[in-house]
Amino acid sequence: MGANSIGKEFVVTCFGESHGRCVGAVIDGCPAGLPLTEEDIQNELDKRLPPNRELVSARREKDTVEVLSGLFEGFTTGAPICALVWNKQTVSSDYDQMKHKPRPGHADYPARIKYMGFNDYRGGGRFSGRITAAYVIAGAVAKKLLEVFGVEVLAYTTAIGDMELQATLSLGDVRANTYANSVRCPDLDAAEKMTETILKAKKEGDSVGGIVECVAFNLPVGVGEPVFDSLDADIAKMLFNVPAVKGVEFGIGFEAAKMKGSENNDSYGMCDDEIELLSNNAGGVLGGLSSGAPLVVRVAVKPTSSISKEQKTVDLSTLEDATIQVQGRHDPCIVPKAVPVVESSVATVLVDHLIRAGFIPKVLGVETIGEYYDIKEED
Amino acid sequence: MGANSIGKEFVVTCFGESHGRCVGAVIDGCPAGLPLTEEDIQNELDKRLPPNRELVSARREKDTVEVLSGLFEGFTTGAPICALVWNKQTVSSDYDQMKHKPRPGHADYPARIKYMGFNDYRGGGRFSGRITAAYVIAGAVAKKLLEVFGVEVLAYTTAIGDMELQATLSLGDVRANTYANSVRCPDLDAAEKMTETILKAKKEGDSVGGIVECVAFNLPVGVGEPVFDSLDADIAKMLFNVPAVKGVEFGIGFEAAKMKGSENNDSYGMCDDEIELLSNNAGGVLGGLSSGAPLVVRVAVKPTSSISKEQKTVDLSTLEDATIQVQGRHDPCIVPKAVPVVESSVATVLVDHLIRAGFIPKVLGVETIGEYYDIKEED
Amino acid sequence: MGANSIGKEFVVTCFGESHGRCVGAVIDGCPAGLPLTEEDIQNELDKRLPPNRELVSARREKDTVEVLSGLFEGFTTGAPICALVWNKQTVSSDYDQMKHKPRPGHADYPARIKYMGFNDYRGGGRFSGRITAAYVIAGAVAKKLLEVFGVEVLAYTTAIGDMELQATLSLGDVRANTYANSVRCPDLDAAEKMTETILKAKKEGDSVGGIVECVAFNLPVGVGEPVFDSLDADIAKMLFNVPAVKGVEFGIGFEAAKMKGSENNDSYGMCDDEIELLSNNAGGVLGGLSSGAPLVVRVAVKPTSSISKEQKTVDLSTLEDATIQVQGRHDPCIVPKAVPVVESSVATVLVDHLIRAGFIPKVLGVETIGEYYDIKEED
Amino acid sequence: MGANSIGKEFVVTCFGESHGRCVGAVIDGCPAGLPLTEEDIQNELDKRLPPNRELVSARREKDTVEVLSGLFEGFTTGAPICALVWNKQTVSSDYDQMKHKPRPGHADYPARIKYMGFNDYRGGGRFSGRITAAYVIAGAVAKKLLEVFGVEVLAYTTAIGDMELQATLSLGDVRANTYANSVRCPDLDAAEKMTETILKAKKEGDSVGGIVECVAFNLPVGVGEPVFDSLDADIAKMLFNVPAVKGVEFGIGFEAAKMKGSENNDSYGMCDDEIELLSNNAGGVLGGLSSGAPLVVRVAVKPTSSISKEQKTVDLSTLEDATIQVQGRHDPCIVPKAVPVVESSVATVLVDHLIRAGFIPKVLGVETIGEYYDIKEED
Repeated sequence: MGANSIGKEFVVTCFGESHGRCVGAVIDGCPAGLPLTEEDIQNELDKRLPPNRELVSARREKDTVEVLSGLFEGFTTGAPICALVWNKQTVSSDYDQMKHKPRPGHADYPARIKYMGFNDYRGGGRFSGRITAAYVIAGAVAKKLLEVFGVEVLAYTTAIGDMELQATLSLGDVRANTYANSVRCPDLDAAEKMTETILKAKKEGDSVGGIVECVAFNLPVGVGEPVFDSLDADIAKMLFNVPAVKGVEFGIGFEAAKMKGSENNDSYGMCDDEIELLSNNAGGVLGGLSSGAPLVVRVAVKPTSSISKEQKTVDLSTLEDATIQVQGRHDPCIVPKAVPVVESSVATVLVDHLIRAGFIPKVLGVETIGEYYDIKEED
Repeated sequence: MGANSIGKEFVVTCFGESHGRCVGAVIDGCPAGLPLTEEDIQNELDKRLPPNRELVSARREKDTVEVLSGLFEGFTTGAPICALVWNKQTVSSDYDQMKHKPRPGHADYPARIKYMGFNDYRGGGRFSGRITAAYVIAGAVAKKLLEVFGVEVLAYTTAIGDMELQATLSLGDVRANTYANSVRCPDLDAAEKMTETILKAKKEGDSVGGIVECVAFNLPVGVGEPVFDSLDADIAKMLFNVPAVKGVEFGIGFEAAKMKGSENNDSYGMCDDEIELLSNNAGGVLGGLSSGAPLVVRVAVKPTSSISKEQKTVDLSTLEDATIQVQGRHDPCIVPKAVPVVESSVATVLVDHLIRAGFIPKVLGVETIGEYYDIKEED
Repeated sequence: MGANSIGKEFVVTCFGESHGRCVGAVIDGCPAGLPLTEEDIQNELDKRLPPNRELVSARREKDTVEVLSGLFEGFTTGAPICALVWNKQTVSSDYDQMKHKPRPGHADYPARIKYMGFNDYRGGGRFSGRITAAYVIAGAVAKKLLEVFGVEVLAYTTAIGDMELQATLSLGDVRANTYANSVRCPDLDAAEKMTETILKAKKEGDSVGGIVECVAFNLPVGVGEPVFDSLDADIAKMLFNVPAVKGVEFGIGFEAAKMKGSENNDSYGMCDDEIELLSNNAGGVLGGLSSGAPLVVRVAVKPTSSISKEQKTVDLSTLEDATIQVQGRHDPCIVPKAVPVVESSVATVLVDHLIRAGFIPKVLGVETIGEYYDIKEED
Repeated sequence: MGANSIGKEFVVTCFGESHGRCVGAVIDGCPAGLPLTEEDIQNELDKRLPPNRELVSARREKDTVEVLSGLFEGFTTGAPICALVWNKQTVSSDYDQMKHKPRPGHADYPARIKYMGFNDYRGGGRFSGRITAAYVIAGAVAKKLLEVFGVEVLAYTTAIGDMELQATLSLGDVRANTYANSVRCPDLDAAEKMTETILKAKKEGDSVGGIVECVAFNLPVGVGEPVFDSLDADIAKMLFNVPAVKGVEFGIGFEAAKMKGSENNDSYGMCDDEIELLSNNAGGVLGGLSSGAPLVVRVAVKPTSSISKEQKTVDLSTLEDATIQVQGRHDPCIVPKAVPVVESSVATVLVDHLIRAGFIPKVLGVETIGEYYDIKEED
């Protein structure tokens, strides 16, 4: 219990349920002096809504963030930032059958046992994908901080079902295209095929999964805290806390198991007086520390558990076999929504570790009170 | 910094370096009343030494554990248990060239930058695989506790290089065969081929990686602390803190990304008045909680970074390109040694979570002082 | 940074500023199944407002709590409880001079240095006594839980300025009288004299301090986690986090320093087949563990720092000597308001430790799903 | 459970029992690059042994520290430092009667209940004053770090029984005299009288308590992490974890309760272009932050619980009234031994907070690899 906080310096505490009043986060440990507005957070939240309405649940809620604390005159103050989105379109009747019949693939059954029936089961309650709005709120603050320090985090879809991205991505494509299409794949041809894959599953009352990749550029060397808060370990932990994630790998990941040491090791070489890694099989992490190469992490997202096809379950009130057809408003594929969540999650961990390693100071901005007054007085 | 502890109730703090005086752990939060001997820990430590000497480094150190605190009259006392193994065969001269030339695939370079050269680089120092002896010490205590509560954790090799296990394993085979062969694969035919794969790489001055799978039986339903200490998240974090792990997946893992929801969801059914999962694609975790099905987790272990083949690197003292042939005593494949480490790591997290969820009480054994005296007086 | 959470099992995270939008708390780790309403919390918050208006600041804000998450059908769900009070009467102009002139006795100066001027200085911002509304919100949940387990926590005033309570208090008086008078002293004669002391200081544009004592009954023996989370240590930490507290002592406290061991030691004796302590100089804590005797803790509360008398300070914009007369709406004595805050703070720590020691389970109420349905279906 | 670690950046984990094999600490989070030797630690440990043998227990053990990890070539490495002292003179027979008869004033009874009799009761086991050797080990590392940053921490005795120090102390006296006399009081006249007080109690088979004051100079302004890790809160927590401490106060402490705001508030003034506090009633802490004035904290130490006078207790095996005369080797007054423990405890918390606030960096010493090589190569 008491496990709704994560991070050691940049501590994110989440609250809220799918069909309660709101979903929100308290972000504690953000350095004072960061320029931050509600709009900064809103922009990230908006990425959770793909433009193509066919791809998403009918609960097409536009989430409007409200910041309740921690900002003053356009800057963070060093005090905890509480921000939330109110729940608006909660149609709880959709979930009546869930009270007794656990949906396959969801947390309904173990949650019911764990909380002895006291958990708010509507829409999955605390286990709903909706709680990731709080992850994105936190990630928005983190990304703003990373921007100041020149670190860029980019996530995108590389597979939907069996439709895998084959093309090599350019950084330009990733920046330009990811959020310009509804599946969040930077390769527009592939994006189109992925869209079809999703729509086909939707038509069948089924769902599909996929793979999200995330890269981070310009991390300094030596970020990560051995031996138990390795950079990859903390990123993996955060990512497995994203609903529907079933696998996490860094660099070439599981492929490394099949390679020889001589193939897998990334050699060093001097390039323009800089030490560089000549390949990046390790995905930017060596011994739990950032190596100087881009961080590369990939997550497997399972297909949406909620499908309208009939499935076998049990009735917990009668303890008899039963069937269920999950009604309600569900995405046929949650991968597109997962993209900004993965981006936010990685950004959040990176900020925590950059503060821990001393790369982000405890207070930002102007160095002295005098200079500060100059800036403020002129406004 | 300050990241050498893990766990919230069952807290493991590790210390020691490859070529320092010792490697050890402080295990804090182990319930009082657990019968525990040095032999219990020794048995687990011995699993780190495969019988076939050809498969392992020449540093074939028999580690003898010493318990320094926390035991009294054969039982744990509730006080922290400090236990360690002394380092004996430390030939530091092997590592002289490492001082200036970072070994590809190792933490040498980022560690040097992070600690500005103050880290003990001999044998990788704090980044050596040797520190996993401390993981196994902690895991031995955890496994003893799990035994009391009927939870069994078993790890084994399923792939070495491109040699993958095809056969379906029986629980009997796993129990009987895993530690009876040097690659720790329960299928003896496959084990033989895997051995050949390792020896072939060794002959070439190269190394191979592989895959370790770990299963846990008899976990109660509802273990795991949402939303940020999900059971899978904490297991993944611990496993990525094992040197050389590059990927972690639960159940069918990355395969889930390719499946339809109707294929991937595990249905429920009544079996002899018990609610059961009819398949286990999820690997025993739903929404970060144990589902009642066996926990199944798989890790990708990269090939040993230390190889005697020549590799490109740089000389940090001259900032020029250089080459390195890693001398010293290295395993051509660390997968066999990783098996008991993965087993220990998973056991450690499970105990932490079983205490957190209230399944393991704070003090064990006899319920009252009166009964306790009966037992003790009769001794 | 990142230090707005406290507790290990029952984790309270606070947010909000004096003149921001709200003050609130996220309470994480409250067991599911606790009957809880907004009214339960409101009742505790109301204790912060003494009936006699003369004794308190003109900012006589009636705080109305709103619970944003964690409750469902009248019970806690196991999910984090976010609750807050909105700030209404914020007259920030009162605080304009504070921007440059730190008020003696306040955190203005070190906060300004620490946050390089980015902190919200209005009304002390995050350092305002107003944030203790969040402590009381958390304490209200804690007290409800303690009630279920038969633990009673009572705080009351024992001194205001040099006016010390001489009479011996009965439990009945404490229960009946504490919140029936405006200084929160259970002895009504003393309360009257204390009121006069406060009004006299007020008339002089000055302020007075005092002492708050808190007792807890029916704690089981053995609560506290040695050696670094001793029960007294965690209570003291929480209490020093209450603004204006300058000293904390248990039992006879500082008097113990003057006593002989033979006088100070509390002997044991059998009373009706129960082991009892024959005195309670230790205040119910031995070696950091609850002893079975009532917990007794006393805190020194300094006089309100904000006074209208002229005081010496400096002007931070000109770095010259200056004077300040603190305007605005200030209590001439904060001791009465501190009483429910101390009560809440002690209750919060006790719940955290009762969960940690295993006395409060992870889920409350009905023992099985079946019984739960009986109760729920009948509703 | 799992509460033998303290600190967030500079994390100290203790282990060991009075009559086990050793007492030790793992210090995690000490920046790399600090010159540190076993002698540095030994010097602090030696302060626990007053030269006058009459004042201390017959168990006059000279503790010799051994560092097991974390040092390399005379510097800290960034890896955890494990250091311990072996127990030598353990005469357990002294403690046989304790098995059944809890000593008044000790943790014997609640510890027995908490651990259901499994705790190592010999000499108090984990509740012995002997464990403070580990606090001093950690404090020695902390003090070495503080020295680098110009912060000085000094503790000394100000009262033994009813014999209170009246003279005003000079910094010179404190530095020169504290450890030059056996009661650790910088005023040598008072020290003599205090010695007599102790010897008188000893002759009577009794014991006395006292007061230890601790000051810290040159702390930067703004150290402390609001609202729940206030500097005073964390210091108080650590100090209440020192056995026998019953009260903690900062600055004038409990006296503040009796004062008017106009008397108690510390005004600001400009002195040589520096902002200074014109008095220090607050003891250097405002709103949980260091104010720039010296930190002043005072602790009440109760009289040694172990006395040879007969005391009432109960026999836990027969549940009958009983008497006990505590045999064994006990100090008639633990205040002198508490002085270096208080000093170490305050130093440990200060280092943790200085790192947290960003004043002590994550790695010390030479700034670049190049410079480092210059230094190392020349050796």
